[in-house]
Amino acid sequence: MDLITASYVASAPDRDPEVLAENIAREQSLELTRSLIPDAIAERLLGRVLSVQPMDERRWRIEIGYPVELASRQVGQLLQLVYGNVSFYPRIRLVDLRLPQSLLDQLPGPIGGLPTIRRLTGVPERALLMSVLKPRGSAPETLARLALEFARGGGDLIKDDQNLVEVDTAEFRHRVSACASAVERAAQESGRRCLYLPHVAGSGDHLRRQLDMVAELGLSGVVLCTWIMGLETAATAARERGLMWLSHPAMAGSFTEGGDCGIATPVLLGTLVRIAGADISIFPGSGGRLQTGQADEVEQTCRALTQTLGPMAATLPCFGGGKTLEQAPEAATQFGRDCAVLVGGDLIRRGRDLQQDVEATIAALSA
Amino acid sequence: MDLITASYVASAPDRDPEVLAENIAREQSLELTRSLIPDAIAERLLGRVLSVQPMDERRWRIEIGYPVELASRQVGQLLQLVYGNVSFYPRIRLVDLRLPQSLLDQLPGPIGGLPTIRRLTGVPERALLMSVLKPRGSAPETLARLALEFARGGGDLIKDDQNLVEVDTAEFRHRVSACASAVERAAQESGRRCLYLPHVAGSGDHLRRQLDMVAELGLSGVVLCTWIMGLETAATAARERGLMWLSHPAMAGSFTEGGDCGIATPVLLGTLVRIAGADISIFPGSGGRLQTGQADEVEQTCRALTQTLGPMAATLPCFGGGKTLEQAPEAATQFGRDCAVLVGGDLIRRGRDLQQDVEATIAALSA
Repeated sequence: MDLITASYVASAPDRDPEVLAENIAREQSLELTRSLIPDAIAERLLGRVLSVQPMDERRWRIEIGYPVELASRQVGQLLQLVYGNVSFYPRIRLVDLRLPQSLLDQLPGPIGGLPTIRRLTGVPERALLMSVLKPRGSAPETLARLALEFARGGGDLIKDDQNLVEVDTAEFRHRVSACASAVERAAQESGRRCLYLPHVAGSGDHLRRQLDMVAELGLSGVVLCTWIMGLETAATAARERGLMWLSHPAMAGSFTEGGDCGIATPVLLGTLVRIAGADISIFPGSGGRLQTGQADEVEQTCRALTQTLGPMAATLPCFGGGKTLEQAPEAATQFGRDCAVLVGGDLIRRGRDLQQDVEATIAALSA
Repeated sequence: MDLITASYVASAPDRDPEVLAENIAREQSLELTRSLIPDAIAERLLGRVLSVQPMDERRWRIEIGYPVELASRQVGQLLQLVYGNVSFYPRIRLVDLRLPQSLLDQLPGPIGGLPTIRRLTGVPERALLMSVLKPRGSAPETLARLALEFARGGGDLIKDDQNLVEVDTAEFRHRVSACASAVERAAQESGRRCLYLPHVAGSGDHLRRQLDMVAELGLSGVVLCTWIMGLETAATAARERGLMWLSHPAMAGSFTEGGDCGIATPVLLGTLVRIAGADISIFPGSGGRLQTGQADEVEQTCRALTQTLGPMAATLPCFGGGKTLEQAPEAATQFGRDCAVLVGGDLIRRGRDLQQDVEATIAALSA
């Protein structure tokens, strides 16, 4: 039987680690006392303990195998399966997730991903430079100007800040059209394309109208806040319209920064967003304003996003969290070329030098 | 100006607490260095520090006011605003959230909530008894039998387990119809109605088809896994079809159990799910299999769900986490009558005594 293998670290377990492992396997699969589960169902669907190993004096590594049927071919249900209820158990952290080929073949994966982004931007090899349009409250023309200068400087990707949200979809269309025209103008001038990704938020008709507008404008993708909108919801919303999807990590720190609990960054912002179909995954890199990203976790997350994984295209890893233009080449050197570095506030600070400073950074990234 | 007031506890802050407070206010509102924000925008949209107070030797309480405009009248964006990026800051926990009347008037709130559930079930005062259909893998007829006996015993609400998911919507319809017919049959016999709430999961067309089926069957509500589907996504999916929504807390432990980080239960599974429009909110009560619920947090969560809050109906608090039938009256005594107690596995264990044991429990709850 094909199994989904989830590895947990139990820190200072509140019961015997072997018992805890059995409890997790049952809680996450059938949520019922063993004696109440008919044997035929248990055989087919009960989670099973694969191993329980001490790591040090207070931590155990617990590996559980879940029958693949339990994921119901849905990324949301997979999330439920590997961490839903156990999120309430004390000090259990999901640290690794391996999926059988049969499930990888059923899950969506990126519709474009890294290869498509490289093709559209015409950047076959080097690390990519991304920037962000902000602050909220700025006139659309101001944001469009910023996009224009970044694109003229040779910047590769520009996204909306996740705070840019309009209640009125006509205002949304006005702002997004202005920025889309700006990057189009730069592309006409230079023959090189900077991809503009508007932020889309909300639900129901409001969400659908915005996504339709983005698709009608011929843009290639959107920014969606995965952990607010829902992982599978975000994936499907973009995919239904043939849009690529940049996964923004807002709220995800609740999972990744929980120390002994939660879900490790390489699993959450690596494997899970990739199999759901994110074309770009932003996560806090080391350095910058958010100090959270440990170098080894950053490296593992990059690997989860780009290594061979069933039939799935690579997701472009993007280091966020307040980096400067000067830090961009360094991040790319440390973690390889298959990444993007996000520079936000530092770019706005450049004022009239923006275009030339971007040019210099792109040159450094190419070196 | 109307402000959204968010209170955070910073434990062992990594910088001067006053500086940290200013950083949070800026990070969550405009995410830009103050000197780069035009004054007119800062005045209108920048978050402001309302107070910074030491609590003990290692903790500070930080209160931030956010201009209400930043929530964009969206529950998802409100979540983003109060915890999105700061989730990546070390040891910052959101512990309180107060919304101005102007925002409460714009947010959905429950379409039915506690008063509607009391009216539909014909239970004007006492605490309610809820059960759950499981395990996955059971024949629809087996689950329908369980629903029938629970309803015949006088049980008030029966929900699908969050593991019950079908890839094939025809199978979904078959199972849900069988259980709906069972509770209908009990209602015909007794003149008393048990509400059956099927679990609906997934995204896109698959999700829409299932919701349409539930609405066509004339059922009054659904179970949605809020923190997998997305808070606002879940709210809108149910509301669009006039269905009530039971908010299941799977994954929410990532937020609530994070110790020094995350979001406190009364805010996440109380205030936030209520303003989003959950008619029922399940959270781990004290006692039972999940030991997580502290009595004071349970009480605060009940209060957040039921106290006067703008124009919003009360959300029914439901204590989950592996309670027995015998524990149900005790939980209701401890936390008041405006609650439901969820009993799952212990009910299945009753076998042929199920109906009479439910009757006895309902009698005890009525006493």
